[in-house]
Amino acid sequence: MKRIGVLTSGGDAPGMNAAIRAVVRKSIYHGIETFGVHQGFNGLINGNITKLELGSVGDIVQRGGTILRSARSEEFKTREGQLKGVEQLKKHGIDGLVVIGGDGSFMGAQKLTEHGFPCVGVPATIDNDISGTQFTIGFDTALNTVLDAIDKIRDTASSHERTFIIEVMGRGAGDIALWAGLAGGAETIIVPEVDFDMNDIATRIKNGVKRGKKHSIIIVAEGVMSGVEFAEKLYEVSKVEHRVSVLGHIQRGGTPTGFDRVLASRLGARAVELLMNNQGGKAVGIVRNEIVEDDILTILEQDRVYDKSMYDLSKELSI
Amino acid sequence: MKRIGVLTSGGDAPGMNAAIRAVVRKSIYHGIETFGVHQGFNGLINGNITKLELGSVGDIVQRGGTILRSARSEEFKTREGQLKGVEQLKKHGIDGLVVIGGDGSFMGAQKLTEHGFPCVGVPATIDNDISGTQFTIGFDTALNTVLDAIDKIRDTASSHERTFIIEVMGRGAGDIALWAGLAGGAETIIVPEVDFDMNDIATRIKNGVKRGKKHSIIIVAEGVMSGVEFAEKLYEVSKVEHRVSVLGHIQRGGTPTGFDRVLASRLGARAVELLMNNQGGKAVGIVRNEIVEDDILTILEQDRVYDKSMYDLSKELSI
Amino acid sequence: MKRIGVLTSGGDAPGMNAAIRAVVRKSIYHGIETFGVHQGFNGLINGNITKLELGSVGDIVQRGGTILRSARSEEFKTREGQLKGVEQLKKHGIDGLVVIGGDGSFMGAQKLTEHGFPCVGVPATIDNDISGTQFTIGFDTALNTVLDAIDKIRDTASSHERTFIIEVMGRGAGDIALWAGLAGGAETIIVPEVDFDMNDIATRIKNGVKRGKKHSIIIVAEGVMSGVEFAEKLYEVSKVEHRVSVLGHIQRGGTPTGFDRVLASRLGARAVELLMNNQGGKAVGIVRNEIVEDDILTILEQDRVYDKSMYDLSKELSI
Amino acid sequence: MKRIGVLTSGGDAPGMNAAIRAVVRKSIYHGIETFGVHQGFNGLINGNITKLELGSVGDIVQRGGTILRSARSEEFKTREGQLKGVEQLKKHGIDGLVVIGGDGSFMGAQKLTEHGFPCVGVPATIDNDISGTQFTIGFDTALNTVLDAIDKIRDTASSHERTFIIEVMGRGAGDIALWAGLAGGAETIIVPEVDFDMNDIATRIKNGVKRGKKHSIIIVAEGVMSGVEFAEKLYEVSKVEHRVSVLGHIQRGGTPTGFDRVLASRLGARAVELLMNNQGGKAVGIVRNEIVEDDILTILEQDRVYDKSMYDLSKELSI
Repeated sequence: MKRIGVLTSGGDAPGMNAAIRAVVRKSIYHGIETFGVHQGFNGLINGNITKLELGSVGDIVQRGGTILRSARSEEFKTREGQLKGVEQLKKHGIDGLVVIGGDGSFMGAQKLTEHGFPCVGVPATIDNDISGTQFTIGFDTALNTVLDAIDKIRDTASSHERTFIIEVMGRGAGDIALWAGLAGGAETIIVPEVDFDMNDIATRIKNGVKRGKKHSIIIVAEGVMSGVEFAEKLYEVSKVEHRVSVLGHIQRGGTPTGFDRVLASRLGARAVELLMNNQGGKAVGIVRNEIVEDDILTILEQDRVYDKSMYDLSKELSI
Repeated sequence: MKRIGVLTSGGDAPGMNAAIRAVVRKSIYHGIETFGVHQGFNGLINGNITKLELGSVGDIVQRGGTILRSARSEEFKTREGQLKGVEQLKKHGIDGLVVIGGDGSFMGAQKLTEHGFPCVGVPATIDNDISGTQFTIGFDTALNTVLDAIDKIRDTASSHERTFIIEVMGRGAGDIALWAGLAGGAETIIVPEVDFDMNDIATRIKNGVKRGKKHSIIIVAEGVMSGVEFAEKLYEVSKVEHRVSVLGHIQRGGTPTGFDRVLASRLGARAVELLMNNQGGKAVGIVRNEIVEDDILTILEQDRVYDKSMYDLSKELSI
Repeated sequence: MKRIGVLTSGGDAPGMNAAIRAVVRKSIYHGIETFGVHQGFNGLINGNITKLELGSVGDIVQRGGTILRSARSEEFKTREGQLKGVEQLKKHGIDGLVVIGGDGSFMGAQKLTEHGFPCVGVPATIDNDISGTQFTIGFDTALNTVLDAIDKIRDTASSHERTFIIEVMGRGAGDIALWAGLAGGAETIIVPEVDFDMNDIATRIKNGVKRGKKHSIIIVAEGVMSGVEFAEKLYEVSKVEHRVSVLGHIQRGGTPTGFDRVLASRLGARAVELLMNNQGGKAVGIVRNEIVEDDILTILEQDRVYDKSMYDLSKELSI
Repeated sequence: MKRIGVLTSGGDAPGMNAAIRAVVRKSIYHGIETFGVHQGFNGLINGNITKLELGSVGDIVQRGGTILRSARSEEFKTREGQLKGVEQLKKHGIDGLVVIGGDGSFMGAQKLTEHGFPCVGVPATIDNDISGTQFTIGFDTALNTVLDAIDKIRDTASSHERTFIIEVMGRGAGDIALWAGLAGGAETIIVPEVDFDMNDIATRIKNGVKRGKKHSIIIVAEGVMSGVEFAEKLYEVSKVEHRVSVLGHIQRGGTPTGFDRVLASRLGARAVELLMNNQGGKAVGIVRNEIVEDDILTILEQDRVYDKSMYDLSKELSI
C-alpha cells in the first residue's frame, strides 16, 4: 500500500474532517501518500482527486462539514460508473480507498471492492443508523445540538406553559430522538422502533397538567412522521394547544464534540491499518467501547440491535 | 413609592430575568418592597402576586425565559379587566408597576396608567421592533442564536454545494434577518423594509455559481413571507435546487448574552427610578448608547426609524 | 425500601443534577419516597435533610453543579461522625442512600454500609479516575469544555505563531488531557500514566518548525506538574518562547452534555434498583457500554486499567 | 486608489477576520484590488504581501484569530523600518493601507501616514481601551467568553458555597471586568478606573454571608493587580477561604459574536471609504451607535471617557 485515497459521501456529519485528518496523518506516519477524492463518488468518476499533505488537514479537526465535499451520484450506482471510478483511482496510482459516510457510501465501497479495488468504510452519519457500530461519527454532536435546542425551547415552553412538539432527524432510526429526549427531560419520546398510542400520550399530558405540570415537551423522530402531522393527530384526540418546532439542518452541522473527534480519529486510523493489511471490503466501528471491523456485506445485511432499556428508562423518568 | 410590582408579558425574550432581577435589586437597594405578578396580565387580574426578595432573583441573571411566566389575556383588553388589575395591585399595596415586554405589553401599561396606576414599560422582545429604543432586550441573544444556526447550516451548504433558505423571526421587522445575514455572510437578505425582485436574486445566485461560488445562503424574515413560500417562488424563476430551514422557537430561548444582560440591568433599574419619581406612562430604552425614556403613547404611535445603511452594506459585502 | 436518600459529595461535576433527578424520579415511579441530604456528609451529620418531590427536580437536568450542594467533612472521616450520619438517616426513616461523587465519596458510602446502612455509589467526577467504570459522570462535559478552550487558544496560537502550554485538570489521571489533546489536535500530550522526555519534546517542536509548523499546543495534565513548571523546564532545554494557560475551575461547571446526562440518568436509576434489591456496598458504572455494578471495596482497591492505544494514536496523528 | 493593503497587528481579537473580509469585499465592489500584508508590520518590512481575492476571504467571517497573522516588530518602531514598509507597499503598487489592531497598531499607521503613505486604523482589541470608539472589535466576544466562564464557575461556587476570585483581561481598562461582572451578577468588581478599599470588600462578603449568601464572585481586572495578589490581600484582612481563577488566553479567541461581526464589517467598509477619499491618518470607530472617524493623533492623545454610571449600577444590583 503506497497510496491511499479518502472520500466522504452521503449527508455530511460533524467529525468527518477529523476522520479525514486521521486517515491522512496515520498514512503519512507510515510513509503512505494520501489523496483526497472531492465531491464523493461523483468526483471519483470525474477524477476530482488531489494530493493531501499534512498541511492540507491542519486546523480542520474542529470543523463541521467535510473539506472534501459530498455529492450524489446516480452514475456511480451503475457498473459503468463504478468501473470509471476504479480507473481514476488506478490512474492516480492509488491502492486503497477509505470511504467515510453512511450505508449508501458503504454500498459504494463494497462495489469497488468487488471490482477488485480494496475499500474500507468509516461510519459517519448523525443518524446512528448503521449496523456494526454502536455509535456513528456525528451522532454525539447532533445529540448535543438537539439538546441545546431543547434547552432553549424549554425556556419558552416553561414561560408560556405550553406543549412543544419537536421533530428531530434520524431517518429510520430513533436514536437522536431517544437520547435527546432522555437527556433533555422530554415528557414523551416517539421513535420508529416502538409503537405508541396517541390516546395514552393525551392522557399522560392531561395527568401531568392535573399534577401541576406547566409544560410538556414531546420529541418526534422524523422516521415516525413529521412534527406537524403528529401535532395534528395529537390535537384531534386531546385538543391540547401546542407549538411545533422542526429542528432541521442545524442538526447536521457544527463543531464536532470531543467524543466525535476521538471516535473519528480512532476509526480513521483503523481504516488505514486495514488497508495496510489488505483487508478491503470491511467497515470499522466501535462496539462495546472497542474499535472493531466487520465485512461491509454483513453490516449492510444485518439489522441494528435496538436496546429497549433506554426507552423504558425514559418512560420511568418522565413520570 | 413603597411597593413596586413587576410583570412580564407577551413572547418571552432572553434577558427578561435579568430585567426582573434589576427591578427587584434596585428597589430593595432603595428600601422599596417588590412584588412579582405571575403569568402576565392574566395573573394580574387573578391576583397571582407574590413578594420577591433578594433570594427570589438569585442565580437567574443567566437564565432564558421568565421566572414570572407570561400569558395571553383577552380579558385584560377590556376596561373591566384592566380595572380588576388595578384593584389587585392596590389590594397588595403596590404603588407602581414595571411591565417588561413588547408593544402589546406597553399598551397594557398605558391603560393601567390611564386608570391612575403608574406603570413603566421595559422593551423586551427578540424582534427589535419597538420604537423608542435602538435595541430591545433579547435581540442580541436571538441574533447570536441565529448566527450559530447559520454557521452550522453553512457546514452542510458548503459540503453539499447547495443553496439554503433560512427563515428567521422578527414579526414585522427585519432586524434579526439583516444583522444575522450581514454577520453570517449571507448572500441575500430579504426584509420587510426593503422591496426585492425575485429575478434579481436568481441572477445573483447564477452569477455566483459562474464565478465559482459553491453555495449560497438566503435569509428570509418571517415578516416578508414563509421560507417555504419564498423557496417556491425562487424555484419558479430560477430552478435552483435548495433546502429550506425554519429556525423557529430556538430563537426565543437560551442564556442571554452579555449585551442583553447589561441592557436589561440598566433598563430595569431606570424603570424603578422613573417610578420613584412618579413618572408613570413612560417606557425606557437605549438610544445612541444612552438610557432614555419617552411617553408610551409616543412610542406606540411613532414608526421605527429604519437605517438603510446596514442593508446597503450587506449588498456590497455579499458581492 | 420505603425511603431513599441521595447526596452529592466531593468536587462537583456536570451531570450530578441529572443523576439526582434520576434517583428521585425512578424512586417515585416505584412508590418510594426520596430525601435530599444537603451539603454532603457534613449535612448528613447535621441532619440537613429534606423531602424531594417530582417538582424538586424539575428543570435541573441541564444544570451544572449540584442542587444538593457539596462540602468537605473532617468529622465524617471518624467513626463517630459516620454513626451520627446513620442516626440522622434513621431519624428520617430512610432505608438506603445513593452517594454521588468520587472515590472519597465511595469510601463514605462504604463506611455507612459497614455500619449497617446500605449505600450505593454513583461515580461522578470530571477526572474520570474511578475504577469500575470506563466513564464517570462529568468527564464528557469537561472534555468538551477543555476542547472549547483549546479551540479558542488555537486562534491566538495560530495568529501569533506561538507555542501554548495548557494545563488541564484530572488529579492523578490523564484522561482529560489525553482525550482533549487527541480531539484538539495537540502536538504534545503529557499524562501521568506515560513517562516523557523533555528533550524529545523540544526536538519535536523544532522539527515541526522546520517543516513549517507555525504553532504548537501542549496539553499538560495537572497530575504531572503545573503548566508553569512544565513551561520552565521546556524553556530550559529548548529556549522556545511560549505562553501558559491554566484552564482552572471552568472545567468543573457548565451544562452537562447529552452523554453525561444520559449516563447520569442510567446510573442514578440503576443505583435505586440496587437499593430496592438490598444490594448495599455497591457502586454502579458503565463498562463496555453496559451499566454494571461492583463492590465498592473492589473498586477502591483495584487500579484503573490504562488503555495506552489512545496515547499511541495521539503520537501518530500529531506527527 | 487602485490598490489597498490590509494588515492586522498587535494581540488578535475575534472579528479581525470579519474586518479583513469587509475591507476586501468593499474594495472589490468598488473595483479596487486588495493585498494582504501577513504577520503585521514585521511582514510589511519583509514584503510578506499577497493578493487577496473574494475567495481568499470566503468562510472566514465566523473565525476567530486573524488569517493574516500578527507579530511584534521592534524594527518597525524605527524610522528605517517604517520607510522599508513604505517601500514594500509602493513596490506592490499599493496606494493605501488599512491597519486593524490596537493603539500600538494605530501608532504604526500614523507613522506611515507621516511618511506620506495614507493609512486608516480600525480598532480591534478585546480590551476596549481605545479612545475614539465606544466599542472595539473583539470586546463583545470576549465579554461573552468571560460570562460563559463565570456561569460555569458559579456552578462550583454555588455547589461548594465558596468565594471565587476571577482575573480577567483588559490591560489598563476595566471594561471587560465591569461588563462581565454586571452581566454575570458578580458581588464585587475591581477595575483600574475606580479605587477600592479591601476592608469594605471583606465587610461586604461577611454581610452577605450573614444574610444567607452562600457564595460570592469577585471579578478583578488584570490592570489592577493579579487575581492571586488580590486573593492574598483579601485573605489578610478577611480570612475568607477562596479560589482563584485566571481566565487567560481563552478570552482572545473564539467565534466572534454577531455584534462584533457587524461592527467589524461596518468599520472595515468605512476604512475603505476613507482611503477612497484620500483621508489617511484617520481611525474609524463607533460612537453613540454611529460609525465615525477621527484623526489618529487625536485618538492616541485623548483619554477614554469612563462612564461611571455602570459601575454605580453594579454596586446597587449586587446589594
